[in-house]
Amino acid sequence: MRSQFAIIAPAAAWRTVTKQMRVHSDSLAVKTSGKGTYEITDEIQDKIDKSGVRNGTVTVFVQHTSCSLTAMENAAPAARRDLEKFFDELVPEDQDFEHNDEGSDDMPSHIRMALTRTSETIPIVDGKMQLGTWQGIFLFEHRRDSHRRKIALTIMGE
Amino acid sequence: MRSQFAIIAPAAAWRTVTKQMRVHSDSLAVKTSGKGTYEITDEIQDKIDKSGVRNGTVTVFVQHTSCSLTAMENAAPAARRDLEKFFDELVPEDQDFEHNDEGSDDMPSHIRMALTRTSETIPIVDGKMQLGTWQGIFLFEHRRDSHRRKIALTIMGE
Amino acid sequence: MRSQFAIIAPAAAWRTVTKQMRVHSDSLAVKTSGKGTYEITDEIQDKIDKSGVRNGTVTVFVQHTSCSLTAMENAAPAARRDLEKFFDELVPEDQDFEHNDEGSDDMPSHIRMALTRTSETIPIVDGKMQLGTWQGIFLFEHRRDSHRRKIALTIMGE
Repeated sequence: MRSQFAIIAPAAAWRTVTKQMRVHSDSLAVKTSGKGTYEITDEIQDKIDKSGVRNGTVTVFVQHTSCSLTAMENAAPAARRDLEKFFDELVPEDQDFEHNDEGSDDMPSHIRMALTRTSETIPIVDGKMQLGTWQGIFLFEHRRDSHRRKIALTIMGE
Repeated sequence: MRSQFAIIAPAAAWRTVTKQMRVHSDSLAVKTSGKGTYEITDEIQDKIDKSGVRNGTVTVFVQHTSCSLTAMENAAPAARRDLEKFFDELVPEDQDFEHNDEGSDDMPSHIRMALTRTSETIPIVDGKMQLGTWQGIFLFEHRRDSHRRKIALTIMGE
Repeated sequence: MRSQFAIIAPAAAWRTVTKQMRVHSDSLAVKTSGKGTYEITDEIQDKIDKSGVRNGTVTVFVQHTSCSLTAMENAAPAARRDLEKFFDELVPEDQDFEHNDEGSDDMPSHIRMALTRTSETIPIVDGKMQLGTWQGIFLFEHRRDSHRRKIALTIMGE
């Protein structure tokens, strides 16, 4: 496939930094009120600002198996509704699951988690997450009830 | 969506460390005996213990394209059986694939890998992976035959 | 499940390095010409070579919500065609989406992104990405039109 497309490396974009490295461990708690996507982009950036890390990465890790992470369009709420509807239909609740201790949304929530992400690692340059223009980071809640969701963050770099 | 939920940052949870950073490169080999999920949580934690890294991240990377990683409920085996059954039905073997050099489970195994994860990065605080109470890390084997699967680990921090 | 398989940790494979750590921030731009998988393995390795990092990780992050990343078999093009066909059928374009500002491939591209990956973190040992023999890293383009896709890279280690 190499010949079918061109890879362009912007000339002036790279840099190497060898200053003092640091590790900043932090966490977020998000109160959810039912299934859906909850944007946490600004809250992650606030933690980066506080950490003092200018170049490196932030690792975002959801400490649950019935919710997950997704990067997504953050300008159009309709796009998120379509995404949520797709997952509702791909993993319907009216299946005959062996594991259903906590109701019909129990097992589907684990499967939707496995199909999306538990961790996401995002580059930081000049103190800012390197997201695209319309790109946000979202907690994807798969349970109907309200929950307090914990997210561990590690911000590492110089 | 910002107004529909509250984000709570626990007050005393964060910290910044600027001690000597280190990189610990390691690996695991897992013998699998057919399709299913194989827990590797304790083995990863053992490697962290050995590394001496107290705060940072562990990156877990599967060096194959016919098995993958998933975080999952580790208390209820039934939940894992439901997960495995879902993937069997979502990516059935009796499709007319162009690529089937190694049998009917060849191509479905690549697709199930793409739908789950190849790498997972997990925060470490005070020497411990920051997993939720019921959260484990699993190798997700998609092939029927026995295999020896290699997982590369990088433990980085102070 | 612990008793059903053996975990073997290769005896001589691990090492800890405490030399000077560094952060190398870089980027790639990929010109795509329609839906499909575009290999970027060599381009990422070139950036690692340039960075001087010998042991650590590279984080690959796609700055878009209508394309994504996947690790995949890089020897058999047929396997990639089957993968692409599967996603075309799993997320068909002829659905009644609420969000379709940019045509029938708009919303399916976001869903296919959410089902695959936005970030991938790969261990580096002795200056080389620790990929399996047939494992490559691919940009997975989900839009029909040509696009210039940006990928942020962070190479961190010693």
